Amino acid sequence: MGDDAIHLIRVMRVKEGDSLTLCDQNGMDYPAIITAIDGDDCLTCTVGEGIPNPAEPRKNLVVYMALPKGDKLEFVVQKCCELGASKLIPFESAYCVAKKSKKDDQKRGRLQKIAAEACKQSGRSIPMEVAPTMTFGEVVQDLQHQDVNLFFYEHATASFATAGLETAQSVGVIIGSEGGFNEKEEDAFVKAGALSLSLGKRILRCETAAVSAVTLTMYAMGELE
Amino acid sequence: MGDDAIHLIRVMRVKEGDSLTLCDQNGMDYPAIITAIDGDDCLTCTVGEGIPNPAEPRKNLVVYMALPKGDKLEFVVQKCCELGASKLIPFESAYCVAKKSKKDDQKRGRLQKIAAEACKQSGRSIPMEVAPTMTFGEVVQDLQHQDVNLFFYEHATASFATAGLETAQSVGVIIGSEGGFNEKEEDAFVKAGALSLSLGKRILRCETAAVSAVTLTMYAMGELE
Repeated sequence: MGDDAIHLIRVMRVKEGDSLTLCDQNGMDYPAIITAIDGDDCLTCTVGEGIPNPAEPRKNLVVYMALPKGDKLEFVVQKCCELGASKLIPFESAYCVAKKSKKDDQKRGRLQKIAAEACKQSGRSIPMEVAPTMTFGEVVQDLQHQDVNLFFYEHATASFATAGLETAQSVGVIIGSEGGFNEKEEDAFVKAGALSLSLGKRILRCETAAVSAVTLTMYAMGELE
Repeated sequence: MGDDAIHLIRVMRVKEGDSLTLCDQNGMDYPAIITAIDGDDCLTCTVGEGIPNPAEPRKNLVVYMALPKGDKLEFVVQKCCELGASKLIPFESAYCVAKKSKKDDQKRGRLQKIAAEACKQSGRSIPMEVAPTMTFGEVVQDLQHQDVNLFFYEHATASFATAGLETAQSVGVIIGSEGGFNEKEEDAFVKAGALSLSLGKRILRCETAAVSAVTLTMYAMGELE
């Protein structure tokens, strides 16, 4: 029942006897066969034995994204989920034009929907979690939950090749907003143990940096094979 | 004179004595100082000695992009230019919903403008070239101009790590449209010597695949350092 059933019945026009794959949002897929269709919002299925979803990454990548302008966060949520990130945490930094606000909860619902769509489209079974917007201080605290944290900074000189992520089970990827970070923020990340890395000599827009950094990190974690 | 002068005078409100960096669109940057401002579209400068632009890649990456739907090609042009691609060639393949048309020349002017903007924004000095739309056969012929060609395909099993791009001076990156490629097209690429590679187990939207593939290729060519 619910939105997915309505979509299957009204848009996909499924029939009794059609097969489906059901996800438990916990990494398992279940083959199913439709046995009854009731109205336009209720399906009954026989469900087979669960198998681990093959598209779900084995390791965790958490994106810490400083609030970008306009609807760029929607774009970043969609792309990071497609690429396999497990969680995205928006946060406010000194140079953010967009600020943490009371409307964030409403926006978060919309972002979570975008992640759920991207999850289905990419064949994943667990939608990337979009966390409530954090303050800068909360982010610095939160970094301790990851084995390794990478901080992409336009003045960094170390190449991504130095990151050494082969054995990390969880990696944090920190991306600035349009204005980047100030020196105090950079210091705070470095003190928290984050590696300051370069994405090359060209200045990337913040949303491009997010997609590129997540791609390289997933690759180095062995999750793009 | 021209658009850039108007932008500098009206929007940036430059004054006599301000310094600028001028590009010759051939990889060289020239430090300049404004000596006179005439009306709102004419600047006179003294120009110093040229130095190679530090953001311009040393190697060539050519993106062969099967025509995507809607305005996605604009997005792909912007992101590929930012990331350092030297040329983008749109082409028509069997499963493209968007087709090669007489309006492509008009669209190409717009795409070239987007590339020029992305070039300035990223600090490059040579805007990525947007080539006229090719047929599938023309693309297969054109691949011979690159040292290595990479073909990203959802059914491929080889990891990007097998590409071996360290010594390649020019690399072609072939990306499908929403529908991907058919088996005949896949065969044609492989016969032309392109390597068939996977971008992981998640199904990426075509524009995400383009950004991810260009990121990994630039990285493997040593151009993200």
